[in-house]
Amino acid sequence: MADGTSAAPRPGTAPLTERSSRVAVARKLTRRAGREKAGAFLAEGAQAVGEALTAHTAGSLRVRELFATEHARHAEHLDRARAVGVPVHLVTEKAAASLSETVTPQGLVAVCDLPAVELDAALAERPALVAVLVGISDPGNAGTVVRVADAAGAGAVLFAGDTVDAYNGKAVRASTGSLFHLPVARNRDVGAVLTACREAGLRLVGADGYAEGDLDTADHAGELAGPTAWVFGSEAHGLPDEVKSQLDTTLRVPLYGRAESLNLATAAAVCLYASARAQHRAG
Amino acid sequence: MADGTSAAPRPGTAPLTERSSRVAVARKLTRRAGREKAGAFLAEGAQAVGEALTAHTAGSLRVRELFATEHARHAEHLDRARAVGVPVHLVTEKAAASLSETVTPQGLVAVCDLPAVELDAALAERPALVAVLVGISDPGNAGTVVRVADAAGAGAVLFAGDTVDAYNGKAVRASTGSLFHLPVARNRDVGAVLTACREAGLRLVGADGYAEGDLDTADHAGELAGPTAWVFGSEAHGLPDEVKSQLDTTLRVPLYGRAESLNLATAAAVCLYASARAQHRAG
Repeated sequence: MADGTSAAPRPGTAPLTERSSRVAVARKLTRRAGREKAGAFLAEGAQAVGEALTAHTAGSLRVRELFATEHARHAEHLDRARAVGVPVHLVTEKAAASLSETVTPQGLVAVCDLPAVELDAALAERPALVAVLVGISDPGNAGTVVRVADAAGAGAVLFAGDTVDAYNGKAVRASTGSLFHLPVARNRDVGAVLTACREAGLRLVGADGYAEGDLDTADHAGELAGPTAWVFGSEAHGLPDEVKSQLDTTLRVPLYGRAESLNLATAAAVCLYASARAQHRAG
Repeated sequence: MADGTSAAPRPGTAPLTERSSRVAVARKLTRRAGREKAGAFLAEGAQAVGEALTAHTAGSLRVRELFATEHARHAEHLDRARAVGVPVHLVTEKAAASLSETVTPQGLVAVCDLPAVELDAALAERPALVAVLVGISDPGNAGTVVRVADAAGAGAVLFAGDTVDAYNGKAVRASTGSLFHLPVARNRDVGAVLTACREAGLRLVGADGYAEGDLDTADHAGELAGPTAWVFGSEAHGLPDEVKSQLDTTLRVPLYGRAESLNLATAAAVCLYASARAQHRAG
């Protein structure tokens, strides 16, 4: 914190209430239609705001403005924001809560430009590992998979078909900053996403609890060491047949005990880490 | 469904309301103190109730009674319950909701005997893989780790120290039946849990984001092929130093990208599956 005092409300500045037009405009970003119309999304809490400011400073994402309550912790973020020309608005607790999608609002919310990443751009650097989400409906799950993909060293995450919006507040939160770390492209056309992956040199592997082949056998046979796009289906229904038919193979995570399945995020963790390990060992 | 009609409310039987003493007594089981006093817990929803009835039929768990609304799906469970002598009580939607810890109550709740599994009993069969939870506070996370441990073929899960109650409604739900598949022992004395694991021939390995050694290197060196108790710390603070000092080693999940960490359930999935894979390959 270069100058602790600059984080304090400026003299004569009353906090904005939830009825102020600036807060009302930002509140529209809690809905997908509002985000797409304004081309912006909300990043809430100290961690997400810190990552957003880092991305802003690096030039990879623009932070438009920051809302903070008087009692927001991590006042250093307010100094950082001001230092790089991001306006900071003091808001009431109620106004901050109106921008929050969490039970315990943190009193710190950044308005960020919605990245418009095309498929080709996301795959331009020919990443060796990519996660593709098809029809994932829970934003927390989607955000957690982005975090896992980042941890496993994936170079992109592709939200395909009817998958939940990556910039939903709960997805942003569950990604714990990973949404700012790697390109995330969205495309409703699942076929186009799979074709783009194949053209980028990726082998298309679906995670499917009913697949004949299992992950450990494929790993042992060296099948996971090459560039791979892992394709994950919905929590309830898995991958539709018409998607599976477009993949190079499907693999199941072996179930050594009596559990019927893993949940999406833990299955994705096991699959993506199996590829990461195989690639690092090979490479 | 042997006889679909038997699932219908019996003539002249009015559904129990949330004010009936039977429902009021069961409602006390939504709290830990109530569960411990009554020696019982609630299993909600078709999947959990189905697993509970399977365990009841196998003699590994007693189901005391079942509450169901008129509109509960999976009426076959009511027939199954009656066939094995478990009383079924018709309840109102409001009464069922009062027993539920979910946003969308499923209208089907079983009252089950709380298993009193001692450490020694949980480890009696000398399992090759065990998960130990130390200070996990979120019931959903705890239940998900039970599910992952089951999937990876663990022979027991041990809830140590201040870890949340395994029989919390949200933990039961997140375990998706795995709580009925393997012995789960609880003990507030972390040292006693670790000693019991060591005496059962298990190597104690802590998951720690700050550990020097990493999982893949240890795996490659053959360190994961032997009997292992994986020890997982709290979501926010990880493992305390005094616990780490009692372990044989700690390992971190390698972070190949820019994510700072994995969440508990995904880290546990990667660790437990690394051991399962190594053991199955070796064995």
